[in-house]
Amino acid sequence: MDGAAAPARPAGLCAFVAVSQALGLALLLTTGAWLGRYRGGLGWQSALQLNVHPLCMVLGLVFLQGDGIIAVFESHRAKGIPNMYSLHSWCGMATFVLYLLQWLLGCGFFLLPGASFSLRGRYKPQHIFIGIALFALSITSCLLGITEMLLFNIRDSYSRFVPEGVLANTLGVLLVAFGLVVGYVLTRDEWKRPPLAEELALSMDFKTLTEGESPGGGSQ
Amino acid sequence: MDGAAAPARPAGLCAFVAVSQALGLALLLTTGAWLGRYRGGLGWQSALQLNVHPLCMVLGLVFLQGDGIIAVFESHRAKGIPNMYSLHSWCGMATFVLYLLQWLLGCGFFLLPGASFSLRGRYKPQHIFIGIALFALSITSCLLGITEMLLFNIRDSYSRFVPEGVLANTLGVLLVAFGLVVGYVLTRDEWKRPPLAEELALSMDFKTLTEGESPGGGSQ
Repeated sequence: MDGAAAPARPAGLCAFVAVSQALGLALLLTTGAWLGRYRGGLGWQSALQLNVHPLCMVLGLVFLQGDGIIAVFESHRAKGIPNMYSLHSWCGMATFVLYLLQWLLGCGFFLLPGASFSLRGRYKPQHIFIGIALFALSITSCLLGITEMLLFNIRDSYSRFVPEGVLANTLGVLLVAFGLVVGYVLTRDEWKRPPLAEELALSMDFKTLTEGESPGGGSQ
Repeated sequence: MDGAAAPARPAGLCAFVAVSQALGLALLLTTGAWLGRYRGGLGWQSALQLNVHPLCMVLGLVFLQGDGIIAVFESHRAKGIPNMYSLHSWCGMATFVLYLLQWLLGCGFFLLPGASFSLRGRYKPQHIFIGIALFALSITSCLLGITEMLLFNIRDSYSRFVPEGVLANTLGVLLVAFGLVVGYVLTRDEWKRPPLAEELALSMDFKTLTEGESPGGGSQ
């Protein structure tokens, strides 16, 4: 659209983004294949509700994270399984709570007008670190969930390299590969988008506002 | 202790294990000797801090990791358990292989005199990223191992919050907390140690050398 003004894309970034998207799609398809082929498919009000949990977690760590958490608690209640006893549940809940905290702090610092420019600047690196840590913790929770599900369902045949075990392990490796590629893209200084003119102007406005002046030069 | 039930060891294995331990000890001593005799020794709050890196890496990731890998294969053979079928084993082996690669590339780029100054500079951020990723992957492998061990041993009582399960989950949370704190410290720009004068001089020497001049101003 505004192609004329677009800055040159850093070399290599496009390829890495493409690989990350391909890995993301591959891991979604693998998750679907595993759940559909070996775990009986998906269902909300049935014994298949537990299967919604991994799909939602993998599909959307942000939007569908809430659905995934509800699914596991409802499924456990229906089956009489206790909650929150496993390391997978502890890590998953830590991820969820940390994400909520990140969301609340993010809203507080970046959305509400009260935070000063310098406070936003000091908080931003912590927000970025927690975001990446949350991403890593989400992947770790998925890997723990995979291991848990395999050992609850195919513990006796897992060591014979049965297809379900190999498929689920492959999903785990895809998750790790996806995490590595996305983590690499996220942490390259040279691939960070420089702030746009309007963002700089907005920052200056925030700065001016918090220093007691109006952004428009005193006319308002 | 359970010597009577122990299966016969394959011929030569003991000797190879002994040799591997001797080599491991020798490589630790050699690393220590090199750092102590030629690189000025070890120190935390001094210019010698960089020397702590190879020593800890060799001690933890080569010597102890090597023993950790050997221990699991020997134990599996003694009990007739197949190897490398679980997600934990796949992640653990990926960590091991990635670390070996990191070690070889690190030696190639930083130790051998062939690499140019600019090549070292371009490789260094990749080395740092892979190092942090390896750390995260190591912790993830530990968490998977914890979950696996719990589900193989206390699957039926795990959900009743038995002490072993709670203790092992706590260990998992401690591992995550340790990873978060170390990861945070590692990735703060403002906590990065600025290069020392002698390191800058050394870099310049490397640069000069690779550009075909002698470091001492042409006298050698």
